[in-house]
Amino acid sequence: MIHIYTGNGKGKTTAALGLIIRSLGNNKKVCLIQFMKKNFVYGEIKFLEKQQNIDIYQFGTDQLIDPNNPDEIDFKEAKLGYKKAKEVLNSKKYDLIIIDEINVAIKWKLLPLEKQLELMEIKTSAEVVMTGRYAEPEVIKRADLVTEMLEIKHYFTTGIQARKGVEF
Amino acid sequence: MIHIYTGNGKGKTTAALGLIIRSLGNNKKVCLIQFMKKNFVYGEIKFLEKQQNIDIYQFGTDQLIDPNNPDEIDFKEAKLGYKKAKEVLNSKKYDLIIIDEINVAIKWKLLPLEKQLELMEIKTSAEVVMTGRYAEPEVIKRADLVTEMLEIKHYFTTGIQARKGVEF
Repeated sequence: MIHIYTGNGKGKTTAALGLIIRSLGNNKKVCLIQFMKKNFVYGEIKFLEKQQNIDIYQFGTDQLIDPNNPDEIDFKEAKLGYKKAKEVLNSKKYDLIIIDEINVAIKWKLLPLEKQLELMEIKTSAEVVMTGRYAEPEVIKRADLVTEMLEIKHYFTTGIQARKGVEF
Repeated sequence: MIHIYTGNGKGKTTAALGLIIRSLGNNKKVCLIQFMKKNFVYGEIKFLEKQQNIDIYQFGTDQLIDPNNPDEIDFKEAKLGYKKAKEVLNSKKYDLIIIDEINVAIKWKLLPLEKQLELMEIKTSAEVVMTGRYAEPEVIKRADLVTEMLEIKHYFTTGIQARKGVEF
């Protein structure tokens, strides 16, 4: 089954993290692949890397990407992320595979859409979760389950900044 | 700050679980209060009850509730849940307080809406997250952040297409 968490609201990556916890609690094996992130100061990563039964791979840099002008390294890292995702999906080693922010990597053209669709075609018994705003219509079409996290009300729009321990 | 995760899609409770992981990774103190659940076989609960810095309280039974005809014990448990939530919100002991499924407890009239609004008025520096479908308009109005998890496509209801006017 392939789940997509998309939309402009909070809760996409955190919902995936919740699924990880549920799986680990049931002694299942989990792989978390993150696009456009390389930063082990995130609270959730600090926590998860201490756990058993989970492998974490991050692809990206600790710099923000300019969607209109990504750096060479951003393309390179996204390609490495795609290769790792392909390997992991084919490995049969995991029960839950999270591919975090891949929708955004596609939207920002760090990877062609075909690569995401190719990953979705890989036969696996694992639950696969792909997150990020801007899931493409073709991705939605091929997914088994799609949830849109819709922002109804947000304090960022009233000028409050991202806070450690809440947003990251 | 009070966050609401509501809507008919997946990811409300799991998003709250993800926030828990993020907080624990940042050495913060967490309280998870669950309405209408008393079942420690949930993978996430098995996992979380082994962790430091988290207290978990469940109110409910291991039986499903009939929304049109709840049992006496369902009302009693909901009332106990409200009391615990009030105590916890006033305690200043936690950085993150999750009140899981309270929106549904209100919708099913296990508790009057005024009790939830009363909890929302308690001054606390903690992040407070209330989850569950059917958040009442008054609750949305008082919240700082509201995300609706919207089911766009679900394998239980095959054939449903992404709807016009929804931005992916």
